[in-house]
Amino acid sequence: MTDLEQYCQTVGRQAREASRLLATAGGDLKNGWLRLAAQLIRDRIDDLVSGNVRDLEQAPEYGLAEAAVDRLRLTPDRIEGIAAALEQVAALPDPVGEVIDGHVRPNGLSIIRRRVPLGVVFFIYESRPNVTADAAALCVKSGNAVILRGGKEALHSNLALYRVLADALQQAGLPENAVQLVETTDRAAVGHFLGLSEWIDVAIPRGGRSLIERVASEAAMPVIKHFDGVCHVYVDESADLEMARSIVLNAKCQRPGVCNAAECLLVHAGIADQFLPIIGPAFDEAGVEVRGDDRVCRALPTARRATDEDFRTEYLALTISAKVVDSLEDAVTHINTYGSHHTDAIITSDVSAADRFVGGVDSAAVMVNASTRFNDGGEFGLGAEIGISTDKFHARGPCGLRELTSYKYVVQGQGQVR
Amino acid sequence: MTDLEQYCQTVGRQAREASRLLATAGGDLKNGWLRLAAQLIRDRIDDLVSGNVRDLEQAPEYGLAEAAVDRLRLTPDRIEGIAAALEQVAALPDPVGEVIDGHVRPNGLSIIRRRVPLGVVFFIYESRPNVTADAAALCVKSGNAVILRGGKEALHSNLALYRVLADALQQAGLPENAVQLVETTDRAAVGHFLGLSEWIDVAIPRGGRSLIERVASEAAMPVIKHFDGVCHVYVDESADLEMARSIVLNAKCQRPGVCNAAECLLVHAGIADQFLPIIGPAFDEAGVEVRGDDRVCRALPTARRATDEDFRTEYLALTISAKVVDSLEDAVTHINTYGSHHTDAIITSDVSAADRFVGGVDSAAVMVNASTRFNDGGEFGLGAEIGISTDKFHARGPCGLRELTSYKYVVQGQGQVR
Repeated sequence: MTDLEQYCQTVGRQAREASRLLATAGGDLKNGWLRLAAQLIRDRIDDLVSGNVRDLEQAPEYGLAEAAVDRLRLTPDRIEGIAAALEQVAALPDPVGEVIDGHVRPNGLSIIRRRVPLGVVFFIYESRPNVTADAAALCVKSGNAVILRGGKEALHSNLALYRVLADALQQAGLPENAVQLVETTDRAAVGHFLGLSEWIDVAIPRGGRSLIERVASEAAMPVIKHFDGVCHVYVDESADLEMARSIVLNAKCQRPGVCNAAECLLVHAGIADQFLPIIGPAFDEAGVEVRGDDRVCRALPTARRATDEDFRTEYLALTISAKVVDSLEDAVTHINTYGSHHTDAIITSDVSAADRFVGGVDSAAVMVNASTRFNDGGEFGLGAEIGISTDKFHARGPCGLRELTSYKYVVQGQGQVR
Repeated sequence: MTDLEQYCQTVGRQAREASRLLATAGGDLKNGWLRLAAQLIRDRIDDLVSGNVRDLEQAPEYGLAEAAVDRLRLTPDRIEGIAAALEQVAALPDPVGEVIDGHVRPNGLSIIRRRVPLGVVFFIYESRPNVTADAAALCVKSGNAVILRGGKEALHSNLALYRVLADALQQAGLPENAVQLVETTDRAAVGHFLGLSEWIDVAIPRGGRSLIERVASEAAMPVIKHFDGVCHVYVDESADLEMARSIVLNAKCQRPGVCNAAECLLVHAGIADQFLPIIGPAFDEAGVEVRGDDRVCRALPTARRATDEDFRTEYLALTISAKVVDSLEDAVTHINTYGSHHTDAIITSDVSAADRFVGGVDSAAVMVNASTRFNDGGEFGLGAEIGISTDKFHARGPCGLRELTSYKYVVQGQGQVR
């Protein structure tokens, strides 16, 4: 066994041991840790900044673009944000021990499902250092030990944050290996961890498509995947035009670089003549490039002709594909065929149309008369999220504390036998 | 592409297409199909028996043991049982569309989680033909299309049953490919299906360990696994001795060949001198062979000495390993180390002991003062089960209709934007 394999095995085994203790740790202990860590982050702001400066200095070596360097930077405001986020997680209800449902059988057996942690989470992520603290907070609060593998470009920032979290674990009386940071930047380490199904219960990659595909294909344990968001807004024949304009612009422009931004506009043929002349100039004004089908291009002189590939593209930019459809059913078929099952919206005043759209669209979140941008753990009231699952298995949509748990059946009898 | 690959691809694509239609099929249609299929099974009892006779005639070629031949046999009683099971599934509430939870956000958005089918299930199983009808019933009732791959030794029985189910689908107005039976016995077909993650959402193997391990390692889609049941009964210091005797005997002897039968008895040292002299003769009388540690062997003259391997063994027979432990915590550690996280019971009159045991034992079902034999979909009130998951991810314990579903977020707004 190589030194690297041995290191990964040790980290995995330690995580499993810590998870056994964490599974029955009370909420007070876990919340105490979160509040203490928030305080230590504020106290040690200088350490965090100096670790971050090392990363920023090395950023040109890694060829980071300006936007990536900006995401990497820890300012005093951002550090306060990290601390405050830990306190917010502390304020959330503890998912562990929650009774999901229960009933009494005719023979007197009481059967309940009680929420329990999954065990050990292997979290693989890129760039932004605040994710280190967020992920550790969500995992530990839900009773899971976590192995954090951040990007090499944020290593020193992550190490500084990790030391704070680890010191706080010790002071709070929680197992020190509840949170571990992979300290090597060797890419082979990820492969070794993905083989440790004995010690790791779930792998969660958060980053680009190639990272997620690598993890999904190599992992010996289940994976919560977060693929692209090719999100649609469908403007139904019965839509309120002003509401449609406002939602389409918000979904596309409010933050174009995120997964729940709209990438495709579908307009019912019966309203296209009214709506396209409204949204076209609004797009022009907002600097949005339109790639439309024939009917869209005829109505909007500034639109380019869309290729089939355009309708499958997550632009993450001020670009949108657009198409006129002859019916709601055509819109649903287009979304299920070209979309990524992430977030899709209908704008309609027709209750039957809303119902058929919600039933037919096979996506993690379906919005009626609301912006796609609301598909988010915070906006859904989950408090925080470790990702947005594009899977159907185990967890779908925003993954917060609850999605990091499993359950056990607890059966209480009075001597029953079969 | 070989003919076999092409065949598997066609079956997979047809299943996906059927699943899109099934996802929005109403409960009346699905229940109508189940009742019609039950009636056709009764009407065509002769076809079923003659298909079964072909399998029984070929059984010696496959080297089937007598018990396996018996499981394969379709008697009129068993055929009536298959029909009645379909009617029972029809009587269960439809899981599709169930609102799991919901709330209104401060901005007025209504957010609910609505249960939806997983999509397409690939179900791989062995021997007993009744499983063909049970699995099809559960999958279709939960809105999923299913690809059934039974054992070669039951092929003609399964084909006869499949024809009934397919004819009933057509008569009931459901997509004919909602249920497909893999008609080739080529083992390579399983490998091809396990690669079709585009068309199959979950694979469920039901059979021996080697089948499950093969499926888990080859599948490109999630797998619901059902591994061994190394189940324990722990007799606490405070146990009611008569209750303990009755539950231990039931858990071991009532049906020793199933996964929720007890395989190991743990007795607290403080009660061993009283309990072992009670359970020892009872085991002798029931023909149960005991493999004990030192302390058990000293108390029970007929016990053999257990090896470490004995404590990891699922005997599925009238054999039990037994051990005296010094504390409840030692019992929990033993169970988490040697057990299979399936079903474990404590017999106790001490509420604190019950609490610590339930919290500490990391198993799908933890029983207090009840037999391990109750961990079963029917006994838990799920109506029927497609298996008992030993995973923590997605579904744990008995898997019925609910466990064959996912959910979607449905968000209702009045024009909200961010």
